[in-house]
Amino acid sequence: MANNKLVINPWKSIDVKDYNKLMKDFGIKKINPKNLPDNLYFRRGIIFGEKSLNLITVALEKNKPFVMMTGLMPSGKFHFGHKIIADLMIYFQQLGAECYIAVADVEAYLTRGIPLDKSRELAINEYLINYIALGLKPEKTKFYFQSEGAIDYMNLSKYVSKKTTYNELKSIYGEITPEKIISAFTQVADILHPQLSSYGGPKPIVVPVGVDQLPHINLTRDIAGRMKSDYKFIPPSAIFTKLMPGLKGDKMSSSDPYSYIALSEDPKEAAKKIKKHAFSGGQATIEEHRKKGGNPDIDVAFQMLLFGLEPDDKKLQQIYNDYKSGKLLSGELKQITIDKMTTFLTEHQKKRVKAQAQVKKFMAKV
Amino acid sequence: MANNKLVINPWKSIDVKDYNKLMKDFGIKKINPKNLPDNLYFRRGIIFGEKSLNLITVALEKNKPFVMMTGLMPSGKFHFGHKIIADLMIYFQQLGAECYIAVADVEAYLTRGIPLDKSRELAINEYLINYIALGLKPEKTKFYFQSEGAIDYMNLSKYVSKKTTYNELKSIYGEITPEKIISAFTQVADILHPQLSSYGGPKPIVVPVGVDQLPHINLTRDIAGRMKSDYKFIPPSAIFTKLMPGLKGDKMSSSDPYSYIALSEDPKEAAKKIKKHAFSGGQATIEEHRKKGGNPDIDVAFQMLLFGLEPDDKKLQQIYNDYKSGKLLSGELKQITIDKMTTFLTEHQKKRVKAQAQVKKFMAKV
Repeated sequence: MANNKLVINPWKSIDVKDYNKLMKDFGIKKINPKNLPDNLYFRRGIIFGEKSLNLITVALEKNKPFVMMTGLMPSGKFHFGHKIIADLMIYFQQLGAECYIAVADVEAYLTRGIPLDKSRELAINEYLINYIALGLKPEKTKFYFQSEGAIDYMNLSKYVSKKTTYNELKSIYGEITPEKIISAFTQVADILHPQLSSYGGPKPIVVPVGVDQLPHINLTRDIAGRMKSDYKFIPPSAIFTKLMPGLKGDKMSSSDPYSYIALSEDPKEAAKKIKKHAFSGGQATIEEHRKKGGNPDIDVAFQMLLFGLEPDDKKLQQIYNDYKSGKLLSGELKQITIDKMTTFLTEHQKKRVKAQAQVKKFMAKV
Repeated sequence: MANNKLVINPWKSIDVKDYNKLMKDFGIKKINPKNLPDNLYFRRGIIFGEKSLNLITVALEKNKPFVMMTGLMPSGKFHFGHKIIADLMIYFQQLGAECYIAVADVEAYLTRGIPLDKSRELAINEYLINYIALGLKPEKTKFYFQSEGAIDYMNLSKYVSKKTTYNELKSIYGEITPEKIISAFTQVADILHPQLSSYGGPKPIVVPVGVDQLPHINLTRDIAGRMKSDYKFIPPSAIFTKLMPGLKGDKMSSSDPYSYIALSEDPKEAAKKIKKHAFSGGQATIEEHRKKGGNPDIDVAFQMLLFGLEPDDKKLQQIYNDYKSGKLLSGELKQITIDKMTTFLTEHQKKRVKAQAQVKKFMAKV
């Protein structure tokens, strides 16, 4: 691996400065949104790249089965950073994908020391409930815990070890420990097991992931190829999303409640957070702002609109232009975001209450 | 690790030259046969050492439950090298141990490429049948395949990864690869899982092993200690057996049928093998032999008697003395061994036929 090549460690948050370099270094293709039904995240470049996505578009065209697979690491409140992947899960489910959602409770225990019962509680009461409130159809979803996987899946997470080396793991992950090796192999099994014969055999799988999960995708794709003779696995497809910036403009982190807004948050609290903490791209004074204009590309209130709070592209463009020209002040931009956020949270939390009953019913069957 | 310290790689056969150095290097205690009911292998120093065996003797004295745990690597015919561990399993079962036998089919697949169905067939038709013919009571035995373990066991084989480091694994095993890491963790779970709450909780476990399996024991003991706060695991006890020499005087190997005698072997074939291939400690000519005497310590025919074919210590000592003095010739010694071997194989193979029905009945319930 070249010295200047980025190494992504999925167990640490990353901050990508140059997506073009990243795409070149990791062989990620630029996404062509024309190949797939309309989606805000495609349109706005939030999904910036893909691997083998053509397998999914072909399956769609030919009306063949395909799988959407994703995992969740139950590390805290479900927030807007998580919403992107949830929306994409739902998007693929609506396109006809069979949905698999792995709760990475084993990984959470191994790499973060989170007890299994705590993971379980968070996965159900933070993640699953929000997924359903956002539109996931639980009856068409295979929601499982890594610690409760079926035997074929468990064994697969061991068999994949045959198809890689320590040096490869080190070059992919940058640093590696026994528990990270186990976590990585478990993730490989998560992604590949829907192709086992007990799950209906080989089929295309799309994994929507934040770019921080790229190493797992690469390892899985390589291992899938090397297992071809035994399992006929099709290397999984992936789409990669940019990471939503945290409230303060740097990384969003489950451990810092002032870095994110949770979907269960009181709208008034959320408004306060945005007013007080959201990193602004505006100038120091109104006068200066009117003259020089703001920078929407680093303004977190604007980013929130971009990442979905303002679904109308034209309106978004207008806000962008007005902010950049100095016509729209930081406080005004924040107020637009706060209004949108208040509406969203209020509506969503009503759906969340409804989802509660569905969650109970669903978990009784899991 | 000191440079001159022996590193044992359990995935390669080893040849221990100096058991005293080994015991010193690895903290193995000399066994005290007085603490346990009589057994040929203790008496004759074939079991040369132990770790924490006092936990087992205490359990015996106090009539408390304890477990005998062992694993089998289904790599070929069941031969005399395997018989030692089988006899010890049965010995502990007769003392009241709950017996666990793990078929290391996952490890066999990962480290030797043996397909699972092949492992299964060998485990049942080579190992289990001979265990039963030798005296194992199947109804008091938990016989399981690594690939079919219960969920708690599967998860344990992942959780143990938290309690070691790559450098530790490397220093214990000498060389390590991802599949060997998985194999090692699976073995740790094999040994520890009878102490999980779903299996009745913490209790002493004795593992009778050939010295080549020492690294697994050490890793398991260390990890058990480090998991104490969560699981209250008692580090497993172990007894270590010397490795029986192969027919030709070097290592016994499943891949070389002239290095061992299988328990299913035609007695006439076995006799031929001993006559033609058994490494002799005798002198080149009868005259020289009469004058200088033979060396029973390297004579494979004598070693076979020592490892159990001659159960009477006094008779064995007489043979030893006579051979050493030159009174007993190599051919005569071989004939004694052949006669004993013929009787043993003939009797055993009758028991094997009887065991067949028991195996079928037992496997229907596994």
